[in-house]
Amino acid sequence: MTEALDLDLVRRIVRAALEEDGAFQDVTTLTTVPADQRGIGAFLAKDTGVLAGMPLVVAAFEAVDAGISVRPKLRDGAPLEYGSVIAEVEGPLAPILSGERVALNMLQRLSGTASLTRRLVDAVEGLNSRIVDTRKTTPGLRVLERYAVRVGGGHNHRFNLADGVLIKDNHLAAGRARGLSLGDVIRSARQGASHTMRIEVEVESFEEAREAVDAGADIILLDNMDPPEMARCVEMIAGRALTEASGGVTIDNVRAIAESGVDIISSGSLTHSARALDISLEIETLRG
Amino acid sequence: MTEALDLDLVRRIVRAALEEDGAFQDVTTLTTVPADQRGIGAFLAKDTGVLAGMPLVVAAFEAVDAGISVRPKLRDGAPLEYGSVIAEVEGPLAPILSGERVALNMLQRLSGTASLTRRLVDAVEGLNSRIVDTRKTTPGLRVLERYAVRVGGGHNHRFNLADGVLIKDNHLAAGRARGLSLGDVIRSARQGASHTMRIEVEVESFEEAREAVDAGADIILLDNMDPPEMARCVEMIAGRALTEASGGVTIDNVRAIAESGVDIISSGSLTHSARALDISLEIETLRG
Amino acid sequence: MTEALDLDLVRRIVRAALEEDGAFQDVTTLTTVPADQRGIGAFLAKDTGVLAGMPLVVAAFEAVDAGISVRPKLRDGAPLEYGSVIAEVEGPLAPILSGERVALNMLQRLSGTASLTRRLVDAVEGLNSRIVDTRKTTPGLRVLERYAVRVGGGHNHRFNLADGVLIKDNHLAAGRARGLSLGDVIRSARQGASHTMRIEVEVESFEEAREAVDAGADIILLDNMDPPEMARCVEMIAGRALTEASGGVTIDNVRAIAESGVDIISSGSLTHSARALDISLEIETLRG
Amino acid sequence: MTEALDLDLVRRIVRAALEEDGAFQDVTTLTTVPADQRGIGAFLAKDTGVLAGMPLVVAAFEAVDAGISVRPKLRDGAPLEYGSVIAEVEGPLAPILSGERVALNMLQRLSGTASLTRRLVDAVEGLNSRIVDTRKTTPGLRVLERYAVRVGGGHNHRFNLADGVLIKDNHLAAGRARGLSLGDVIRSARQGASHTMRIEVEVESFEEAREAVDAGADIILLDNMDPPEMARCVEMIAGRALTEASGGVTIDNVRAIAESGVDIISSGSLTHSARALDISLEIETLRG
Amino acid sequence: MTEALDLDLVRRIVRAALEEDGAFQDVTTLTTVPADQRGIGAFLAKDTGVLAGMPLVVAAFEAVDAGISVRPKLRDGAPLEYGSVIAEVEGPLAPILSGERVALNMLQRLSGTASLTRRLVDAVEGLNSRIVDTRKTTPGLRVLERYAVRVGGGHNHRFNLADGVLIKDNHLAAGRARGLSLGDVIRSARQGASHTMRIEVEVESFEEAREAVDAGADIILLDNMDPPEMARCVEMIAGRALTEASGGVTIDNVRAIAESGVDIISSGSLTHSARALDISLEIETLRG
Amino acid sequence: MTEALDLDLVRRIVRAALEEDGAFQDVTTLTTVPADQRGIGAFLAKDTGVLAGMPLVVAAFEAVDAGISVRPKLRDGAPLEYGSVIAEVEGPLAPILSGERVALNMLQRLSGTASLTRRLVDAVEGLNSRIVDTRKTTPGLRVLERYAVRVGGGHNHRFNLADGVLIKDNHLAAGRARGLSLGDVIRSARQGASHTMRIEVEVESFEEAREAVDAGADIILLDNMDPPEMARCVEMIAGRALTEASGGVTIDNVRAIAESGVDIISSGSLTHSARALDISLEIETLRG
Repeated sequence: MTEALDLDLVRRIVRAALEEDGAFQDVTTLTTVPADQRGIGAFLAKDTGVLAGMPLVVAAFEAVDAGISVRPKLRDGAPLEYGSVIAEVEGPLAPILSGERVALNMLQRLSGTASLTRRLVDAVEGLNSRIVDTRKTTPGLRVLERYAVRVGGGHNHRFNLADGVLIKDNHLAAGRARGLSLGDVIRSARQGASHTMRIEVEVESFEEAREAVDAGADIILLDNMDPPEMARCVEMIAGRALTEASGGVTIDNVRAIAESGVDIISSGSLTHSARALDISLEIETLRG
Repeated sequence: MTEALDLDLVRRIVRAALEEDGAFQDVTTLTTVPADQRGIGAFLAKDTGVLAGMPLVVAAFEAVDAGISVRPKLRDGAPLEYGSVIAEVEGPLAPILSGERVALNMLQRLSGTASLTRRLVDAVEGLNSRIVDTRKTTPGLRVLERYAVRVGGGHNHRFNLADGVLIKDNHLAAGRARGLSLGDVIRSARQGASHTMRIEVEVESFEEAREAVDAGADIILLDNMDPPEMARCVEMIAGRALTEASGGVTIDNVRAIAESGVDIISSGSLTHSARALDISLEIETLRG
Repeated sequence: MTEALDLDLVRRIVRAALEEDGAFQDVTTLTTVPADQRGIGAFLAKDTGVLAGMPLVVAAFEAVDAGISVRPKLRDGAPLEYGSVIAEVEGPLAPILSGERVALNMLQRLSGTASLTRRLVDAVEGLNSRIVDTRKTTPGLRVLERYAVRVGGGHNHRFNLADGVLIKDNHLAAGRARGLSLGDVIRSARQGASHTMRIEVEVESFEEAREAVDAGADIILLDNMDPPEMARCVEMIAGRALTEASGGVTIDNVRAIAESGVDIISSGSLTHSARALDISLEIETLRG
Repeated sequence: MTEALDLDLVRRIVRAALEEDGAFQDVTTLTTVPADQRGIGAFLAKDTGVLAGMPLVVAAFEAVDAGISVRPKLRDGAPLEYGSVIAEVEGPLAPILSGERVALNMLQRLSGTASLTRRLVDAVEGLNSRIVDTRKTTPGLRVLERYAVRVGGGHNHRFNLADGVLIKDNHLAAGRARGLSLGDVIRSARQGASHTMRIEVEVESFEEAREAVDAGADIILLDNMDPPEMARCVEMIAGRALTEASGGVTIDNVRAIAESGVDIISSGSLTHSARALDISLEIETLRG
Repeated sequence: MTEALDLDLVRRIVRAALEEDGAFQDVTTLTTVPADQRGIGAFLAKDTGVLAGMPLVVAAFEAVDAGISVRPKLRDGAPLEYGSVIAEVEGPLAPILSGERVALNMLQRLSGTASLTRRLVDAVEGLNSRIVDTRKTTPGLRVLERYAVRVGGGHNHRFNLADGVLIKDNHLAAGRARGLSLGDVIRSARQGASHTMRIEVEVESFEEAREAVDAGADIILLDNMDPPEMARCVEMIAGRALTEASGGVTIDNVRAIAESGVDIISSGSLTHSARALDISLEIETLRG
Repeated sequence: MTEALDLDLVRRIVRAALEEDGAFQDVTTLTTVPADQRGIGAFLAKDTGVLAGMPLVVAAFEAVDAGISVRPKLRDGAPLEYGSVIAEVEGPLAPILSGERVALNMLQRLSGTASLTRRLVDAVEGLNSRIVDTRKTTPGLRVLERYAVRVGGGHNHRFNLADGVLIKDNHLAAGRARGLSLGDVIRSARQGASHTMRIEVEVESFEEAREAVDAGADIILLDNMDPPEMARCVEMIAGRALTEASGGVTIDNVRAIAESGVDIISSGSLTHSARALDISLEIETLRG
């Protein structure tokens, strides 16, 4: 999918963040920087990674003062290294200072997710597994974090509980308590869900995987298996369903997992544990 | 400050998170779990730390179904270790499953912040430094994350740009470009800001610290100094202003920093880098 | 899927409708009916069909006055005939009168959709086709109208553009203009979309249907074909993909369409052209 | 009244409809149409009627992409026949496809109401009755539907319960239960309501009409009478009050009703039963 | 009209006021009053007037803490004198202190409007003029202030520009610039406005008043005339239209104005200049 | 502080006020003024004072019609006298008339506050007291009213309960009931509040003032003292804390209060009792 972002949503999120931060009543700046003083600044990378979040930077400064001009030097998806000039910002100094933190917070967080995604994607280069996110996102920021995953070369899993079927152990247990087999539960979902949705089932063993694929599951989530067991499952499934590896994925083991032949590798860490990328705004000149 | 939380705000944040997650149209659960099946679950700690976020767990299940009963076994601030039973939840199974992730996401994130705060607070035990947060919070969740800091034994810095004065290097540079001294900038803030606010100034050297305190600053932020230099500043200031250490605070160096005699130690990591605490919801029994 | 409805959403929609109708400042009622006068009313069907919308009736009266009691006599999905008593309402008369129209508007509209759905479902009884809705819903009411379709025995298509892939003629034409074949376009969607989504393709001829299924489409939408042509396509596809009939579906031709063997029959008329069911609220007694 | 529309409200309604339809995350278009491919389209009438809704079409495409240009060829109120070119749209193809359905839904619905209104208005040409709407509008769309009635040559009744007095049978019955005559109820409303409002009373017989006009009602609503009875009432009232016919108005009987001499003819069908006008968007050319 | 108030609107206004006042993060109270300390308080009048606003007091304390009990001793509309006990409040002390100011601000403001209204109403006792408000209300509080006018014995004018016709000098001048007479302008409004609205015209002289009533105006607003001139107009109009006096109404001249025979006396001062009534909350006992 | 205003907030407040006033459905104007008639108007002062609120006037006309041009002739803070031309407005006449009242209401109210503030500020000229506002502001308009105070030369007190500590008599009484001294309560606040906040304490006697300053209070609020007693307190405090006079401040006694040497004089009347400044919009020419 191209890296589309709903700009109206971006503006609402940025606006809310600026209000939360009191950016429109920045008492320090209002009392120490006159309205006609101007400034020039540069966003500089202090780290290696992938840029993500420029639309939020543009939106943040646009929101604090329409007279600020942001000139991107790089686009989302660009590789960053120490010293990379990401963008220049110029205009009245006071609102630049008032909007700085929200802009940086967004840029660092999203670039962190894009960078981690890129590392996992690079680690499986040449193999057939796609790297995807999960629902372990920051409340309120899911659209943005999924965007960052795409910017980093990854793909998205279902957006939420409403737009995809994933039968987990608790759903299966609930069925068993009523005397239903794994296949019965799959058929119940198939009957009730829209015909446009694939049915994914989480399994914890080779036997469950076999039962699920025999019952017509479209995707088999192999939960917390080691790569050899995954490989056995992939071989058994033999293309009758997609396979997804999940649980404990790290930069160290992701290639081994991919080599098992799974189609998808999902990782919650892309969104809940990505380290913020170090980016700073250097105000370079100040004129009275 | 007592650990007060605006419950209406809590409900709005939780409701928004549930909508983002599609919890009211959970197609998997709706198609596989009948409305009259019931369940009992327990929130269990898988980690050591401090509990924070119970009001959000209560609000999450209340929002998905008024018939779910949440019975807290521990209160926010309680110490956790592997196996601690945090709360029980009982009621119709389907909405329990639909609300589970949002409840866990909130609980894990806030407990992570409270736990990291507690570690820093414990590390400076017996010394006079208070541990405080910064503005490097998650957009939209600042009120909650500051609450978690208090739960962990820390204190809060200013809420945002509107309710405190913190003169940073860029404000000073803006003044210098207009021919103003550090003292001039402080006086300008004092003149413009409400009389209820203290004036804090960020300094990068002993000399700047001396200049700031002589000019009447109420709080001196010692930016990225090493403990010996901090100690020299504290000695020179001699109680004429509060001192705050900031920059690169870790669990390893926090006691050394505190031993320099600073009054406040602020750490962005409490909110932007706290590891989520591992907590799970175990569905223990299921009745048809 | 069970007929779940997000009650908080229901309350918001009903509240907005009541505000739009000025129900909280009903000048006629406020000036002619004293606050302590009570009334009893009955919702009566004046028509044959299927009931849908009781949660909105309950929410409407709850919103205008907590002292009104609504006693449903039938549940959503119940068959209605002339004279069926749907529910009784009792309480202070003034708010009953102020909320009456919004309650009726909702009930009549949703029962209309459920009733039309039921007629189509009954018409294909014994065959394998499921009746589904489309995106031609009333702006702002999609969740409710899809619920009414389910109440009437139908199923739902994708919720919106974000949660399902449906490649239409314009998407194919856009590809052709860039030198892409139908198969290329399908592969492009497969590559970009989440692995949880099926790929549906709209085709207008037997040849296109063959091309689509050979290229791996999961669902083939047979657009405006006559039943014999549909039957040829179904035979050719032979279970390799689901088949969906769309365009010009009526109560008169739906069985013939189903007899062609298609899996799904979608009809925009369920939501954009269902006649409101005639239901009235009779105020039976009034006490001073 | 001129056909004024609050453009900010229009934008909010359109924006909400686009979000409901997932137009900003149109996965099919995003995965099959590149951002730089352009398209030209034409809105064409497939039916005879009156155009209404162009401001919503403009707002819809403006919302999905500021780079789309909409060139209206006809204005709201223009007569349509099969093949009439309503407007051209040109710009990036992807957002045109994503916004198409919301634009069409709005245009078809409002043109349907304007067209039906025009038919009734034309049917009473040369007589003194004005055609007006009722409160039986679609929840959330009342402002738009009333606009469409005006575009079709009709007039509006009161907006809602708050801005006009209409004493109905239940209000009269409530009064009778407390020993009040029809005249008493009218005087109660007159006393309580703003002096800027006329008092309208619904009557079901010649005798009630006489009683109401004698008691000073400003408008007499003749409920479900046949034209001869209406004519008797009009003659008796003799200009002392306005007369309004309501109930069972159709294109077939509206002229007979008007010939009875009533001032106003109100019809719920204008808004709850107008058939959507058939309008399509033909994408004419596509360039890579 | 009875003194109905939309309680949901009341709750939203009160909630917004509490948030604006930071009542859910009242740092003073949170740091000095423990959660388990309780208090009892009494709202006492320090002034003479009419009580209005009790539903807002109840809503304010309900919003800050569900455990606070408010026991009204008087109802809206009750006369107040120095020392009148209006209500008692009991519960946890901290939220009582946090909500006190918003409750008082609302109560004092609305009681001020009700009291001023009552003084004008009493001043015209025995005469036929009703006292009404204008559109000069506080932005955001119009519904509440109109309620206070009713509580004080007054009536309401049109709610806003959308629900009543009032042709002012600028509308007449706009007509004259296009060659239209006063009668032409009235007919234009009559033609365009809903038949449920009366047509009011502002006139500045006896001649204009005659012209307006001859042209069929329903209400004649006599703008800034002295009582004798009003009396001449009233005599000339002779019941063919209602008459409204406006401009410079004070407690000193209102009876003289009423004696001119006008039906309505409107006063902007009821809402834009009413002095807040002095009411205080005395915390009587405090238990640890 | 410079007179910064959050323009997005201004637009939201103005938009809400226009909707409340029905400005987008102004039936009188829509039926009597054609869309192509134009007008020119001038805002004229009818009074002496200080201008405040021009951004709201600009926003109001911008909201009703983008084609209206507002040309300010004076800026906020300018002195006004009878006849001062404040601004010109030109464009389509109809929306000018529809937006007029909201623009005037805002301008008159805020100029009233700025003017009263200026009178108090001028009255203490040459002395060291700053004039500040309180929390007795109009619900929903606090940001605007504080702005007007600054425009008039005053300063702001804390924004709300969340951003400043002010220990009042009830907080002290709550402490006493638990056996705490005034100093204990101050220390409790100091311990719990952010280190960025000053601690202010309300005292009612010389003795309490001494006790508070000895206990380390940063600001002493001298409640309802007469100037000689204030002077004694100021002398005793001798610069160890700021002093604030509050209660019963009028234009007549403000200079005597200031001469007592207090640093701050706070007055609720600036926002709850400022008389609206008389400003009118004269439509000067009208062209067909």
